[in-house]
Amino acid sequence: MGKKYSVSLRVPFYDVDLNQNMKLSHLLARCLYVSGLQSKELGVSDQIIFADYHLVWVITDYDITINRLPHYDEEITIETQALSYNHYFCYRQFKILDQDSNLLLTIMGSFVLIDYRTRKLSSVVDEIVAPYESERTKKRFKGPKYPKLDESIETQLPITFFDYDLNGHVTNSQYLNWVYDSLSFEFLKEHTPKQINLRFLKEITGEGAISSKVQFNDNTSYHEIQYHDAVHAQAIIEWRKNDL
Amino acid sequence: MGKKYSVSLRVPFYDVDLNQNMKLSHLLARCLYVSGLQSKELGVSDQIIFADYHLVWVITDYDITINRLPHYDEEITIETQALSYNHYFCYRQFKILDQDSNLLLTIMGSFVLIDYRTRKLSSVVDEIVAPYESERTKKRFKGPKYPKLDESIETQLPITFFDYDLNGHVTNSQYLNWVYDSLSFEFLKEHTPKQINLRFLKEITGEGAISSKVQFNDNTSYHEIQYHDAVHAQAIIEWRKNDL
Repeated sequence: MGKKYSVSLRVPFYDVDLNQNMKLSHLLARCLYVSGLQSKELGVSDQIIFADYHLVWVITDYDITINRLPHYDEEITIETQALSYNHYFCYRQFKILDQDSNLLLTIMGSFVLIDYRTRKLSSVVDEIVAPYESERTKKRFKGPKYPKLDESIETQLPITFFDYDLNGHVTNSQYLNWVYDSLSFEFLKEHTPKQINLRFLKEITGEGAISSKVQFNDNTSYHEIQYHDAVHAQAIIEWRKNDL
Repeated sequence: MGKKYSVSLRVPFYDVDLNQNMKLSHLLARCLYVSGLQSKELGVSDQIIFADYHLVWVITDYDITINRLPHYDEEITIETQALSYNHYFCYRQFKILDQDSNLLLTIMGSFVLIDYRTRKLSSVVDEIVAPYESERTKKRFKGPKYPKLDESIETQLPITFFDYDLNGHVTNSQYLNWVYDSLSFEFLKEHTPKQINLRFLKEITGEGAISSKVQFNDNTSYHEIQYHDAVHAQAIIEWRKNDL
């Protein structure tokens, strides 16, 4: 188990939705920010690994368990640690805690290192991960089976300038917004996710529109983000109905 | 001239665009957050004026002068003060400063108080504005003349669940995103705004799509955000070409 690092913050108005719950895409961005602060403190910031190794961190999978979403103006703590790594993957956990240390969410993220010049996968570099003191393992995280969607409903959504990050790729959190955008306001007002699996397959670097596909089975929704006929991301969300 | 209040922050990756410049819509949200902190400190928080007077602050106009946008990872200071008020309008200034106190942006905002139950304009309540120590004036801010757009290009854009704030209205900053969404990636990569005027006419509370209209005259773009055939916001932006 690796070194822990944590940051507390109060949830501002611009991070919450209609239901006064923290937007999950914003929470994921804050989590990455916190892990970036840890990397900086440990001397392996994004800037350093880019300069020294031409490598960048890329997320491949999220596995998110939600007891409750943070509320507007609530003080929360984001606690993170690198848990383990194998030949290609690094596994990092984020715990979101309320002021009484109750666990609100657990977010597991799988990360790989990509060579910025060739866009090819790199094996994990020992010197980069050593400072986190996470465990080397042969175990590989197995995500769920994402089924083929054969009766999905499709929503066309524009790719906008502000969907892009400073590296010229659509931000990870935008994929989750697109997943949500396939669902009706009525549904989103009345439901909260309990469990989310999200898998990134291919980066989007172009313009135009994506297609957000959704298919329901009871209280679980299955999603695909398509761009130019290729699937770029998949998600499975289990929902709970909000208390009235 | 009213009391000053300021907050410093470092620009995180999730607040910057492709050009590594701070997204203006995010900066506007941060500015409102800072003025909210001042109101809280002065005992006239949004919660208090809602509970005691059934009133909410609504922005009607922004007048933004941009010397330079904040960069990724730059430390900036947001300094704000309520400047003056008249029978209906309150005028607030935000200055964005870099670490050497150079002025990056000046943002002037016009605010009114709306009765939350009737959605009607209220005259300014002396007890609410007194703590800011701004000046009572008869002067009224005059925005630019927003011309009728007769040869505009139209882009249809979906209203999404996350465009809404906790009060059930489309966030102010989303209108500015929609204005940008009428412009091409190529243009936005190569240009930065120098001066922006933005006027909010009517709140959007529904679903569906908006139409973002744009028309150019030299280096100035004129914008309208239409929803169900009504104009809800207008903007004029003067652009400068980025240095190569």
